[in-house]
Amino acid sequence: MEQVSFTVANLWMMIATALVFVMHLGFATLEAGLTRSKNTVNVLFKNTLIPALGLLTYAAVGFGLMYPGESFAGGIAGFGGFGLVVPEGGLEPAYNGNFTYWTDFLFQGMFAATAVTIVSGAVAERVKLGSFLVFAVIFLSIGYPVTGMWGWGGGFLATLETPFHDFAGSTLVHAVGGFAALAGALLVGPRKGKYAGGRINPVMGHSLPLATIGAFLLWLGWFGFNGGSVLSADAGAVSHVLVTTNLAAAAGIVAATLVSWRLSRKPDLSMVLNGLLAGLVAVTAGADTFSPADAVIVGALGGGLVVFGVLGLDRLRLDDPVGAISVHLLNGVWGTLAVGLFGTLASPAQVLSQLVGVLAVGAFAFGVAFAIFWVLRATVGLRVSEEEEVLGLDIGEHGMQAYDLSPGPHHGARPAAARAHLAAAPVLAPALDER
Amino acid sequence: MEQVSFTVANLWMMIATALVFVMHLGFATLEAGLTRSKNTVNVLFKNTLIPALGLLTYAAVGFGLMYPGESFAGGIAGFGGFGLVVPEGGLEPAYNGNFTYWTDFLFQGMFAATAVTIVSGAVAERVKLGSFLVFAVIFLSIGYPVTGMWGWGGGFLATLETPFHDFAGSTLVHAVGGFAALAGALLVGPRKGKYAGGRINPVMGHSLPLATIGAFLLWLGWFGFNGGSVLSADAGAVSHVLVTTNLAAAAGIVAATLVSWRLSRKPDLSMVLNGLLAGLVAVTAGADTFSPADAVIVGALGGGLVVFGVLGLDRLRLDDPVGAISVHLLNGVWGTLAVGLFGTLASPAQVLSQLVGVLAVGAFAFGVAFAIFWVLRATVGLRVSEEEEVLGLDIGEHGMQAYDLSPGPHHGARPAAARAHLAAAPVLAPALDER
Amino acid sequence: MEQVSFTVANLWMMIATALVFVMHLGFATLEAGLTRSKNTVNVLFKNTLIPALGLLTYAAVGFGLMYPGESFAGGIAGFGGFGLVVPEGGLEPAYNGNFTYWTDFLFQGMFAATAVTIVSGAVAERVKLGSFLVFAVIFLSIGYPVTGMWGWGGGFLATLETPFHDFAGSTLVHAVGGFAALAGALLVGPRKGKYAGGRINPVMGHSLPLATIGAFLLWLGWFGFNGGSVLSADAGAVSHVLVTTNLAAAAGIVAATLVSWRLSRKPDLSMVLNGLLAGLVAVTAGADTFSPADAVIVGALGGGLVVFGVLGLDRLRLDDPVGAISVHLLNGVWGTLAVGLFGTLASPAQVLSQLVGVLAVGAFAFGVAFAIFWVLRATVGLRVSEEEEVLGLDIGEHGMQAYDLSPGPHHGARPAAARAHLAAAPVLAPALDER
Repeated sequence: MEQVSFTVANLWMMIATALVFVMHLGFATLEAGLTRSKNTVNVLFKNTLIPALGLLTYAAVGFGLMYPGESFAGGIAGFGGFGLVVPEGGLEPAYNGNFTYWTDFLFQGMFAATAVTIVSGAVAERVKLGSFLVFAVIFLSIGYPVTGMWGWGGGFLATLETPFHDFAGSTLVHAVGGFAALAGALLVGPRKGKYAGGRINPVMGHSLPLATIGAFLLWLGWFGFNGGSVLSADAGAVSHVLVTTNLAAAAGIVAATLVSWRLSRKPDLSMVLNGLLAGLVAVTAGADTFSPADAVIVGALGGGLVVFGVLGLDRLRLDDPVGAISVHLLNGVWGTLAVGLFGTLASPAQVLSQLVGVLAVGAFAFGVAFAIFWVLRATVGLRVSEEEEVLGLDIGEHGMQAYDLSPGPHHGARPAAARAHLAAAPVLAPALDER
Repeated sequence: MEQVSFTVANLWMMIATALVFVMHLGFATLEAGLTRSKNTVNVLFKNTLIPALGLLTYAAVGFGLMYPGESFAGGIAGFGGFGLVVPEGGLEPAYNGNFTYWTDFLFQGMFAATAVTIVSGAVAERVKLGSFLVFAVIFLSIGYPVTGMWGWGGGFLATLETPFHDFAGSTLVHAVGGFAALAGALLVGPRKGKYAGGRINPVMGHSLPLATIGAFLLWLGWFGFNGGSVLSADAGAVSHVLVTTNLAAAAGIVAATLVSWRLSRKPDLSMVLNGLLAGLVAVTAGADTFSPADAVIVGALGGGLVVFGVLGLDRLRLDDPVGAISVHLLNGVWGTLAVGLFGTLASPAQVLSQLVGVLAVGAFAFGVAFAIFWVLRATVGLRVSEEEEVLGLDIGEHGMQAYDLSPGPHHGARPAAARAHLAAAPVLAPALDER
Repeated sequence: MEQVSFTVANLWMMIATALVFVMHLGFATLEAGLTRSKNTVNVLFKNTLIPALGLLTYAAVGFGLMYPGESFAGGIAGFGGFGLVVPEGGLEPAYNGNFTYWTDFLFQGMFAATAVTIVSGAVAERVKLGSFLVFAVIFLSIGYPVTGMWGWGGGFLATLETPFHDFAGSTLVHAVGGFAALAGALLVGPRKGKYAGGRINPVMGHSLPLATIGAFLLWLGWFGFNGGSVLSADAGAVSHVLVTTNLAAAAGIVAATLVSWRLSRKPDLSMVLNGLLAGLVAVTAGADTFSPADAVIVGALGGGLVVFGVLGLDRLRLDDPVGAISVHLLNGVWGTLAVGLFGTLASPAQVLSQLVGVLAVGAFAFGVAFAIFWVLRATVGLRVSEEEEVLGLDIGEHGMQAYDLSPGPHHGARPAAARAHLAAAPVLAPALDER
């Protein structure tokens, strides 16, 4: 009996892990779609590296730091013990008796990487590739796991009198990524031309189909992100969480539609996609404590909030190409506070604990990210040259372009050798450049 | 024992729900790929709204209407009871003892939304966004759940002497959507220029990669659509259904290839993708009663049928940009009748019951959809202006474009402000316009 | 008890089957993205047909050949017995007592088709559609199942004193496909212009977003490809395999990044995507015997190897548009040998058995594929005309184009009738052509 129910819980956690993995493709396509085609290779490159770095650093350091005493090796030397042998303990139940350490590591490792992906979107189209990858490795190793431990690994937020409640990571994943994104966006500065002439010059994405694919894949991934955070296959608990999660997404879509239709007279697809994600981020902290009606309210407010967030950040001259800060930071905080306002845990004491959690985690995540980015800026540099930014990071950092869709016979996207030709293009087409 | 097998069945139903969710991305990309790039934002927008509206209306009304007495609140006031609290009954088995009400709601709600998506494809590229969304909300609330109840909720089709058999919805989902699509296509009329000059002027889709992604994602989703319709994780029943489902898809592909290769001398990818979907729609009614060989025959005939359907509807001057009526209505009906002709239920009496079901459901679905669209046309209007149709709904309805893939430095897809510029383009490039 | 654990194992195998199915979309998008847009319809067409042909031939012939005595009908007449009725035995456990024959057939059938997809990539952009489809049917029927039987169906490789160990198919699936790809690439010859002027002229893919989507979907599919190859839902075994699989993918990405950055001074996204796949192919033979550290090493060496493979094959004037031979053949062999060098089975005797397996399987797969392609070349021809190759196979074989992304009002991708016009287009619109 024990054995079968263990197998079932472990099975669900592995499937949830696969779904969280899908989120990395979701982030890659969303970010690529919402930025310009001259930077697409760069965006895809970062987002391919991130899950790889996430898993490797989590094996080496993160797992041990975040769940002290529970990884294969314990502590920071995790990879040594974890990696050198097939441990006898592989079959032993993890801390909660529902799945193996293997599954625990993989599920948590996939989570870790999502936090850094959020940053990638906010600094897109001007951050140096190498500097971003260095940031990612350091933040994955010592940023994310520490606050994760505070909330989920038996740390001080879990042992408050009224414990901080963050079911699947509105704060511990999304706001952590959002605070780091804020630090990055502040230090790297806005994209060239975004606020030129004292105006806000909209820079639209290059492919809304790609962005839509991304948003839907993220929604799909959330089935695992929230559903897996039950940490078992308990029928009532998981299906409750999936209902609240999906209703919040639906409400976020509808709210963002109404608000953006009202504000701009035209319903804006990229706003609606962000509304969808906002609803999901917002419901994540309390997906297990909200009723369906709570979830609709929390998601709808999230979907409205993100529209004002995107517009508001632009007024502050804070350039965030994909709206990552509005989606993940603003709504991560909103969702975390909502746990104290709606659902089975609603109480003034809970609001306070939620606030303590947000402030503590936010200060640490922002501080660590700011420090890393600041040192990188002061040393190897954080931002590509102005020339490279104009030309595009695809040519500058990778020597290739993302597309070649010219009709008729041709030779595909240009290799590095074509750089000279491409470099000349702006001179030939200054009108395009000025748009 | 009870508990573990309940957990397993519920787990499969949740995974099936996630797979059915994927179908919404499949429909979005299929429809976008098979239409023109000037209408892509609009297509994606509709398809993002549909699952949101589907889930919210199903929570508010549909679930209660379709399964009377079995939703949380019973009857039309479902959302009240469903939404306000985390019900004690969340863990209680649903009507068949295999999964929770939460899971039941979410699985059925994802189904509901697919019916409306089918309509979206048939009226694409000329329907007013607002009018379509109003149709979707009304049809989801009072159209789909009523016929669903007739067949699956203990209604009169389920209690015929020889009960109407529609395993996973060839009629109750696909033909319902197809009949509504027919009503919509009739009332909105063909796209400008489609039948100009007394000829059939082919209007090809703008991205076959997008369409192919869509068709494959729909195939993937069908693992959940049909596999989940077993309503348990029974090993024999689910795996049997998956074998018939997949073989029918395979046969639909091969048959559509042969027929289209024969008819047009060139194998047509969009026909083959529709053949794949036709095989899937056709097998859906009898996936549990067909043998593998039956499934191959039913799927192959479906794959052939869809090619003739697409060509035939054009002769009737019925414009259906994505072939939705041929795929979902024609093959929904074909698959439903095939239950009486092949497999374990084959009998003349069954054919009769299937016919009764198709006619009753068809009359209701067509009638309701026709009435909604007719009222909309007579009041707020159903179709965009001729000018907007030529310019594209992306600019007209959303003030943005789907793509900006111009090589070299640029500023991404144009925001609303660029509208005037874009409107002028055809004048500057009349040759392009004539293509 | 028995019954529930059977249901759970069968459930996981069905989910794994769905994940392996996703690989077909992954291959379709990867291959389309890494080739030119003038051949995109053709690539998508082949990759849509392949899973269909794979399932149908596996039902008719392959299943019976590969697992003699264990398919429904036994032997080559499998489809007869398999297909005509819903067998009583559908619920009976398959050979290992963990899942139904239905599930067994579907999982193995999805595997079969992947081997042929690999070939598709290597001969892309110049192979005749009809000839390739004939090859696929024959190779699926008598090529893949025979070597599969040798290793997995109780054949001579399984009964060596030190049995050949190929957990999920580094050799039996990937190298089989890779050897057949080598035969095909040799006989069809390089693409026109690829080695013109005595130089290696890079031909880049037309859409790196499409290629990235493909690589991520393949990674996702590998959760089922390797995870399902445990042939049960055993918690320890499956989660161990998923950890090694994912760490190898991560290591492949990082290694390919470092090597390509070093060699070409610019990190090359297409190399990194191939590094990801190389890590996955390499870990596949020993995913169950490697420790996490082993998996990192094997994957990293795979990721490096693929870069040298791609560059090396070009030096040999062997044109492989997507790097299929470097990914699947080179790393299939490397991963198979690695079973003897790392992990729980490491021993000199094992290395020898692995070598025997690779040589025997390779000789058969290469021989059969070479024979089929040779006969096709000598009769109906293997390669499109030079004119068609220049114009693109989309127009030549299918009479349509994959994209129409021109801004402003237009009529979508061109139908067959527009062929003449398109051939002339560059002349009529030199400005567009020069972009």
